[in-house]
Amino acid sequence: MDSTLKELATKTPKKIVLLVMDGVGGLPREPGGKTELETARTPNLDALAAAAECGVHLPIGFGITPGSAPGHLALFGYNPIEFPIGRGVVAATGVAFPMKPGDVAARLNFATLDAAGAISDRRAGRIPTEKCAQLCDLLKAVSIKGVEVFVKPVKDYRAVVVFRGKGLSDMVADTDPQVTGVKPVDPAATDPKAELTARVAKDFVAQARKILASQAPANGVLLRGFAELPHIPSLQELYQLSPIALAVYPDYKGISRLVGMEAIEDLADLEAQAKALATVWDSHDFFFIHHKYTDSKGEDGDFDAKVKEIEKVDAFLPRVLDMKPDILIVTGDHSTPAVAKSHTSHPVPFLIAGEGVRADGTAKFGERDCARGLWGTISGQMLIRIALSYTGKLKKFGA
Amino acid sequence: MDSTLKELATKTPKKIVLLVMDGVGGLPREPGGKTELETARTPNLDALAAAAECGVHLPIGFGITPGSAPGHLALFGYNPIEFPIGRGVVAATGVAFPMKPGDVAARLNFATLDAAGAISDRRAGRIPTEKCAQLCDLLKAVSIKGVEVFVKPVKDYRAVVVFRGKGLSDMVADTDPQVTGVKPVDPAATDPKAELTARVAKDFVAQARKILASQAPANGVLLRGFAELPHIPSLQELYQLSPIALAVYPDYKGISRLVGMEAIEDLADLEAQAKALATVWDSHDFFFIHHKYTDSKGEDGDFDAKVKEIEKVDAFLPRVLDMKPDILIVTGDHSTPAVAKSHTSHPVPFLIAGEGVRADGTAKFGERDCARGLWGTISGQMLIRIALSYTGKLKKFGA
Repeated sequence: MDSTLKELATKTPKKIVLLVMDGVGGLPREPGGKTELETARTPNLDALAAAAECGVHLPIGFGITPGSAPGHLALFGYNPIEFPIGRGVVAATGVAFPMKPGDVAARLNFATLDAAGAISDRRAGRIPTEKCAQLCDLLKAVSIKGVEVFVKPVKDYRAVVVFRGKGLSDMVADTDPQVTGVKPVDPAATDPKAELTARVAKDFVAQARKILASQAPANGVLLRGFAELPHIPSLQELYQLSPIALAVYPDYKGISRLVGMEAIEDLADLEAQAKALATVWDSHDFFFIHHKYTDSKGEDGDFDAKVKEIEKVDAFLPRVLDMKPDILIVTGDHSTPAVAKSHTSHPVPFLIAGEGVRADGTAKFGERDCARGLWGTISGQMLIRIALSYTGKLKKFGA
Repeated sequence: MDSTLKELATKTPKKIVLLVMDGVGGLPREPGGKTELETARTPNLDALAAAAECGVHLPIGFGITPGSAPGHLALFGYNPIEFPIGRGVVAATGVAFPMKPGDVAARLNFATLDAAGAISDRRAGRIPTEKCAQLCDLLKAVSIKGVEVFVKPVKDYRAVVVFRGKGLSDMVADTDPQVTGVKPVDPAATDPKAELTARVAKDFVAQARKILASQAPANGVLLRGFAELPHIPSLQELYQLSPIALAVYPDYKGISRLVGMEAIEDLADLEAQAKALATVWDSHDFFFIHHKYTDSKGEDGDFDAKVKEIEKVDAFLPRVLDMKPDILIVTGDHSTPAVAKSHTSHPVPFLIAGEGVRADGTAKFGERDCARGLWGTISGQMLIRIALSYTGKLKKFGA
């Protein structure tokens, strides 16, 4: 099917906007109650839903709880099972680090270790990004024979390390035990071909420990998601799109770059995203707008704050509509119900609005109303195909 | 799955009718409006829908706009991606030309060329079929060493040419540039193994030009859709059916023959189709009835005329019901909204009526009512399976 789609793809001037409220899907906080989205006052989204084709989507498949990277890959039309993306790669591309084939990247979290070497805080007291950048600079002193080491700050206590050298492999297990009170795990190869990489990572951790000894609360490092660069065909290659990402958070810029999108740097908030959208409108035909905080508040378990984030996006919506996109998709990459404080597998509501849609009169942009929309429950990987065909970007198949 | 279905298939006397309104799916002509089907007064279809299982189907897949041949293949239960059918084959089988393996067929359109050899009318002033037949007769004078050439009239300015000889291939590009004011493209091989065929086709075009020199407006030919016969397992082979097609247009007879159907010749209209249905009722168990003009009027952009065509089929429906089919499917092969003037990827409404269905009370046979029917949105390739099983033609799987 992928090669068929590629053959059918054709360039048109029509414009598609994909507006993602991260983790927007939710759950009621009490039996019989409403979800976050159902609770939110969203007059703009509701009006749009009534004139749109609505449904709910499963980003990866029934029962699969998507991580952020695969959830977005699905929305970009890829099968995330076919294109696994490690956390390290997401982090590296997120800060625009130019990874090369054979490089191995890992997410590096600064952490607090006690006198015995056990983890007392997995997030190093959530140090600010500026401090993180200073510490990354210090880690330039790490020296490993035959291997180049790059350490780049990401956000707060999060950084990324990239190892470059011959014969490296990403088959190395996380050193973050995910709990406090125990020592970080030594880097261990999960495949014999990664023995060298595990030794390199172990050397790096040991040297980092010495360099950071006096830097409490950030006196240790935890490594997660060792990963090599995957080969993903780009959205240009597949669909002849000129896509651009308008995301505040580095990871989402990273995922976007992996599928060939440009990504605008230094967008602080929805206001900046709205202005940037107008600026790049004429030069692109696919616009991915990402709002992170619906997910963050869900992860925090803060139902009311998540409702407010949804309402912010509702207030932002007219700025998108002002651009008159030919097709506008509004959805999420997965559900993050505040009551769950985590991603879940629940279907995610979506709407497809624009010219040439069969308005289904959905009364409210919410999980249960959308599930009764025209599309019912479909794969999240199909949304972009529908948008492409509605904008004439997929030619007729066969005579 | 195909081999499983084949193993489960069993012959029963029960009868299935598949009634296809070509391109029936539509769109409202103004925001908040109704589609062609929703607008049409269809008391018979509506009554049937209420007592049927309704839904909408995607003939090929999400975002894929079906051509006529693949759209029908899907309704006959095949995956059109797996069985690509070239336009030439559709045309040749449509006029009951007995293609053999190794033959290469192409659609031949008579066209008007100006003094400089540029195309001034790609349809030769839409000459009538009788004139087309005379011109095809003239082209019998073409002589190419080692290759037999057959030219058969199809309809109006449309004909088909079949080349028979050793070492031919269908990897030849269209000579129709799809625009006027330029010369026809020379036949070119898209694969080295088709060099001979390209030379043969070039020779044919040159000789045709001479023969037709005095036949303006039909003084040139355009070739499209070079194609060899695909191997498609027949409906008899797969499901032990005795299928027959009742179609007015040649192409649909052609597609039907490709899957092993008989096809009745010389059916002028729905009245003739109704009479033929009664005639062949006892000798067959699968009846494909095709109505072309819903699509034609959609392609013309004539909303009201498409509505009328739907109403004609509604008036025809009692003639089918009189035969008391065990299962009756009413649907389309794709959408052709008048506002789009072309095929689109929008889901196509269907109803499955007969004994042993779960009547879903759908109030109106229309896109949006059907989308809320019991089946929701499914693949068009599944409809025949449902019909086969409801008529006992697929045995239980497993103990």
